[in-house]
Amino acid sequence: MSNNLQQYAIGVDIGGTNTKYGIVNHRGDISHSGRMSTSEFLTAEAFVAALYSAILPAIDAVGVENIKGIGVGAPNANYFTGSIEHAPNLNWKGIVPFARLISERFHLPCSITNDANAAAVGEMMYGAAKGMKDFIVITLGTGVGSGIVTSGHLIYGHDGFAGELGHTVVRHGGRQHWSTEIYGSLEAYASATGIAITAREMIAGADKQSLLKQYPLEEIDSKAVYECAMKGDEIAKEVYRFTGQILGEALANFVMFSSPEAIILFGGVTKAGNLIMDPVREHMEKNLLAVFRNKVMLTFSELKEADAAILGASALVWEIKR
Amino acid sequence: MSNNLQQYAIGVDIGGTNTKYGIVNHRGDISHSGRMSTSEFLTAEAFVAALYSAILPAIDAVGVENIKGIGVGAPNANYFTGSIEHAPNLNWKGIVPFARLISERFHLPCSITNDANAAAVGEMMYGAAKGMKDFIVITLGTGVGSGIVTSGHLIYGHDGFAGELGHTVVRHGGRQHWSTEIYGSLEAYASATGIAITAREMIAGADKQSLLKQYPLEEIDSKAVYECAMKGDEIAKEVYRFTGQILGEALANFVMFSSPEAIILFGGVTKAGNLIMDPVREHMEKNLLAVFRNKVMLTFSELKEADAAILGASALVWEIKR
Repeated sequence: MSNNLQQYAIGVDIGGTNTKYGIVNHRGDISHSGRMSTSEFLTAEAFVAALYSAILPAIDAVGVENIKGIGVGAPNANYFTGSIEHAPNLNWKGIVPFARLISERFHLPCSITNDANAAAVGEMMYGAAKGMKDFIVITLGTGVGSGIVTSGHLIYGHDGFAGELGHTVVRHGGRQHWSTEIYGSLEAYASATGIAITAREMIAGADKQSLLKQYPLEEIDSKAVYECAMKGDEIAKEVYRFTGQILGEALANFVMFSSPEAIILFGGVTKAGNLIMDPVREHMEKNLLAVFRNKVMLTFSELKEADAAILGASALVWEIKR
Repeated sequence: MSNNLQQYAIGVDIGGTNTKYGIVNHRGDISHSGRMSTSEFLTAEAFVAALYSAILPAIDAVGVENIKGIGVGAPNANYFTGSIEHAPNLNWKGIVPFARLISERFHLPCSITNDANAAAVGEMMYGAAKGMKDFIVITLGTGVGSGIVTSGHLIYGHDGFAGELGHTVVRHGGRQHWSTEIYGSLEAYASATGIAITAREMIAGADKQSLLKQYPLEEIDSKAVYECAMKGDEIAKEVYRFTGQILGEALANFVMFSSPEAIILFGGVTKAGNLIMDPVREHMEKNLLAVFRNKVMLTFSELKEADAAILGASALVWEIKR
């Protein structure tokens, strides 16, 4: 890795609705950031052309000769092939050779990976995992994603798809996932979607008073759970206890796999703070083999959520493929 | 890795009762092999002195200048520290600086790791994982161990203790492990010990005839289950179906972690062949995310069990630490 502070990387974070981008230096300072629509472009080619037009003034401002490359975080992106493959939330169907499209348009090298892997690289370069070689990032948003780093490198597996910890089963025969159809997977419980389901189940069976009862059952979402929990609502807090227990049990399994120095939780669900962290810690420790107990640092991401995606994507440019 | 066929490595496999050793070339040919007692030596120092006397004639035969080093597979061995730490089945208590003792006595470099990691390196050098960079070895013996290789390197984690997959929980609130006290861990079911417990539970609750009923309940062990299953006993075969289901569910979780090209099953329990492999495969596939289905090669070790431990230990010598 070069430490030339006059070198820059472009970070692009592609979401289903919007795309954010920025130019980042080695310290993680973002300049020239912006956003544009993803969903209004029916083809990846049209999107890349528009992205190029949007970023070009910024490239000219820092000088193209000072830009080392472009890193892209995108759903279903494969680091090995450079393709976005069958992304359900994007208009571009099938297998899109996205890194090649970017490289050809920008005349710059391009690396792509999924959002959770990008988050892990971002934490390693600029965030809570700075200086660490063995850690796991768990992203808790609409879904549950993960990026696993061992000996300083992301685990990609033989095909580029490693690190799907949200789909590991934590409750045999448990809640069926709405899309994968797997029973009892972590994502079925610990995602924002899973939290909403848990809350609706708890409210439906509860005699107790609860602020959540002000909502029509089908309108209870993770935001409502958060707001009610912040007002001290017992059932909403119980939703976080239950979610945290299951997440903690899952983390124990992950620790026994790769023995990380730290696990970093990232994403919207972490707003609940200690309401979720306390049960996570308790149930992780309870399920660990003695040799791992009280050794794993459990922490929230230190990256500003607004910046994290761009930082993580840009950090791919500094990451050297082994 | 050098491919000089005139170079040799010494492989030492330390078990609780006996120790096996041999001199191995790059092709995996074992010469000058032997065995000695482990348990009769009350200190590691006395053991190492005896091991030196036992191997010395072989070292002289091939020439000490042709030996690159000594690899040791031992219970609770830590690759990073070179120590054997609190091994419950060895006489040498506490933290024993074993690699240093070996190096000082033999005047040769020494690497140590646990038996399952040694098995994984052995498979990569000489066995079913030859040429692979991403695979997992699961050892199914008295306990359940694992060695995880990604991008051609063993995962050690930040402290050297990664890869304890036998202790991941696969059945929340399930059978309590006799020693770790964790509920529902893989080892509680898929080890020889676990298989015996399952058989006793099934026999205790069964009206059906079974060859296993010839044994006093407390004398049913995994060997009895194997022998009865080979004679076609339905309950013994059901024990393997149940064990295979749980193991398959656990393997699905491991695949979503590191996306290996292959999973290699090793050890005494694998003697049951398809009786266990068929349910393992079925339930692994059933619990996988679509992107991983029908891609993971599931196979038995190709190393002769008598040689595997020595080969795996010796292979550590060729493995370059990164």
